[in-house]
Amino acid sequence: MGPTARLAQFIVQTDREAIPVHVLHEAKRTLINVLAVALAASEDPSVDALEAWGGTEGSTSVFGRGTASGAQAALVNGYLAHLQDYDDTHFPTVLHPSAPTWPAVLAAAEHTGASGVETLAAFAIGCEVACRVALSTHPWHYDAGWHITGTVGGFGAAAGAARLFGLDEVRTTQALGLAGTHAAGVRDAFGTNGKALHAGHAASSGLRAASLVAGGFSGPDAILEGRRGFWAVLSPNGHNPAPIEALGDLMTTGARWELQNNGLKPYANGVVSHPLQDAVIELRNQHSILASDVVAIEARVHPLVPELMGRAQPETGLQAKFSHQHCAAAALIDGAGHEAQFHDERARDPQIAALRALVHATPDAAVREDEVYVTIRLTDGRALTTHIEHATGSPENPMSDTHLEEKYRALATPILGAPAAEALLRAAWALDEAPDVRGLMALASMRR
Amino acid sequence: MGPTARLAQFIVQTDREAIPVHVLHEAKRTLINVLAVALAASEDPSVDALEAWGGTEGSTSVFGRGTASGAQAALVNGYLAHLQDYDDTHFPTVLHPSAPTWPAVLAAAEHTGASGVETLAAFAIGCEVACRVALSTHPWHYDAGWHITGTVGGFGAAAGAARLFGLDEVRTTQALGLAGTHAAGVRDAFGTNGKALHAGHAASSGLRAASLVAGGFSGPDAILEGRRGFWAVLSPNGHNPAPIEALGDLMTTGARWELQNNGLKPYANGVVSHPLQDAVIELRNQHSILASDVVAIEARVHPLVPELMGRAQPETGLQAKFSHQHCAAAALIDGAGHEAQFHDERARDPQIAALRALVHATPDAAVREDEVYVTIRLTDGRALTTHIEHATGSPENPMSDTHLEEKYRALATPILGAPAAEALLRAAWALDEAPDVRGLMALASMRR
Repeated sequence: MGPTARLAQFIVQTDREAIPVHVLHEAKRTLINVLAVALAASEDPSVDALEAWGGTEGSTSVFGRGTASGAQAALVNGYLAHLQDYDDTHFPTVLHPSAPTWPAVLAAAEHTGASGVETLAAFAIGCEVACRVALSTHPWHYDAGWHITGTVGGFGAAAGAARLFGLDEVRTTQALGLAGTHAAGVRDAFGTNGKALHAGHAASSGLRAASLVAGGFSGPDAILEGRRGFWAVLSPNGHNPAPIEALGDLMTTGARWELQNNGLKPYANGVVSHPLQDAVIELRNQHSILASDVVAIEARVHPLVPELMGRAQPETGLQAKFSHQHCAAAALIDGAGHEAQFHDERARDPQIAALRALVHATPDAAVREDEVYVTIRLTDGRALTTHIEHATGSPENPMSDTHLEEKYRALATPILGAPAAEALLRAAWALDEAPDVRGLMALASMRR
Repeated sequence: MGPTARLAQFIVQTDREAIPVHVLHEAKRTLINVLAVALAASEDPSVDALEAWGGTEGSTSVFGRGTASGAQAALVNGYLAHLQDYDDTHFPTVLHPSAPTWPAVLAAAEHTGASGVETLAAFAIGCEVACRVALSTHPWHYDAGWHITGTVGGFGAAAGAARLFGLDEVRTTQALGLAGTHAAGVRDAFGTNGKALHAGHAASSGLRAASLVAGGFSGPDAILEGRRGFWAVLSPNGHNPAPIEALGDLMTTGARWELQNNGLKPYANGVVSHPLQDAVIELRNQHSILASDVVAIEARVHPLVPELMGRAQPETGLQAKFSHQHCAAAALIDGAGHEAQFHDERARDPQIAALRALVHATPDAAVREDEVYVTIRLTDGRALTTHIEHATGSPENPMSDTHLEEKYRALATPILGAPAAEALLRAAWALDEAPDVRGLMALASMRR
């Protein structure tokens, strides 16, 4: 059996009952995370242009915006889920699997009337497929300049939708083929709206692939391994079929699912600063520190921190997201690192600017990427220290459900209002008992 | 000035009055060709699935099918224009420029109310951009496994739409950027519906890029030459900026436009058999040959003819398109090579099968690809011979306007009926005098 056929077999044959409960719980957590970050993004002015492009007629839900055709809803929801760079991360590959996969799965579930638990299973399966394809091409594909979320994401979207449409193995193989041949997104688009549009394209293109094959379209039947297929053309410097071949084991032995290697971001900024922010917030909350108390924030960090995020005085919000000094200062003042901590006016705020100047990070090759040692020196002479061994959101220290709820509320409540935001949160936690996703999606797409 | 900025300058600054009349005439011919092949394809059952996918609400025209959103119309029209492999070919690069470019230009013109001549100019400019980008990556990009019509086609679509939307040079650069980062299509999809979908994706994605930038989206501003841009990622084995740098000359000196290197196909099959079909039809018409008169059809051909299209007894219509024996036999019986000559029942027709067995092609490395020597031996002992120096549709022997009209009528009349087909043909020839494209598009999209 070839690798593409192996993916199709996994998609079609995996028994929903065999998916571990903790994997379905993780799927639910990624949904809550997607809802949070997409709702927070739904007021960005660029979304008006994206909606105007495809029209809003139809019956599938757009987060925070109303309804659209399935094609358009998947495009906009994928865009929204990735716009703030605040979605989840598959740590082994830097794939962001939820932004392309969840919108396709939800649109397909709205269309077919699938139950909540079937929808969660379809996401878990689609996410697994995306992560396995990503593993099969990493690091060669990303290093060649591809944005792996845009390219590989379409496989996850097609897989989840194909599962819900009930395609057989031959058709599922061809749906993966149509998704794979429309894979797109180069890293030169980073820093522009194009980056989030990659995720929207992957969601929409993957859903389209499954829909068209369900309607009789033919597609290539060996897209991964074909002579002019995905591996040969989009990862010419290397690929590794083993993660896909191992799907056979996953189906029979219940080995580790890739959702367990997928982390939720506690902060809407570059991931290498996350341990530093964890440390500052821990000390701030334990000792009720005010900005005016601080003499210095000293950190021993992984060398990537100053290399990627050494920017003492950023001038815009986007620059602030890649300034560890800003991240630490905002963490001390606000106890958080959401989008609100990275608006342009916060980058120019004199109180934050003064505190940024007191942040000193020393690179140390013995410190891991998800680790940090921090000392905060205060005006009263005290020196408060802490050691973060694994940052929040790393696979070894997943964000707790309580912390995820805090993140969700911080992002969703300003958009939906507290009553609707709480109702949506309850609907998401109870999704495995829901007869379908329509109630959840009606709440998620309320137009303000 | 970088190459991407050079493209934008050409798109924005080219004076419509400076485009040679013969180039605008060629643009009109490509439109008539697109209308012919797209209308002929519009009854294919796969189109139902494609329409169902995106919905049909909206106000932009789909060839032979009614209206849809601009996004959807460009997707379906690009698909239709390429579905029968019967659209035009840019000979130096094997790019098919019209299928991605015309649908985007027409949707943008319907939206903006652009005049007919402005629409023709926007197509000529978009087509030039697509051909120049194709030249800059050929042969490395195609050889790496990319379907150049799917990938490079989006640049043509974005360029033509950006011109009609009146974007300035900075925004046009970013529209090219968003189109380029969504370039997609690998050659493993050949032989499936995925191949034509590449053209639809390019049309829709290019139009989307221009629309989104017009609405405020940002995109990468050096997509061709960027470190992780189109050349580096999608053509890593080589690229050549010279054809794009030369656009400066084109704007000032009126050098040769690439539309002059773009040929229209007289036959709906593999291009290497076209000289053979020209020869058989010439002899058939001159001497009123019937199939029952023939003892043998002997040809001296370029070696690619037997290599790519040696298939004595094809079993399906698709196989027949890649059988020079079938092409020659059908040409003798019907005097044509349209889609009707390649239906499955014609592949199985005993009269054609008997004649195919009498076709003998001898490879000769001294014969050029667009050349053939043919002798037809008859039951009465006569041997009729001819030499085709340049096949119809090659740059040295363009299809005549009369021949194009014959092709158009053969394809469009069965779909629209003669009165509407003739009215549409007149509207296309008079497009440079039309106040807008709406009359033409209303005729082209009549739902039967």
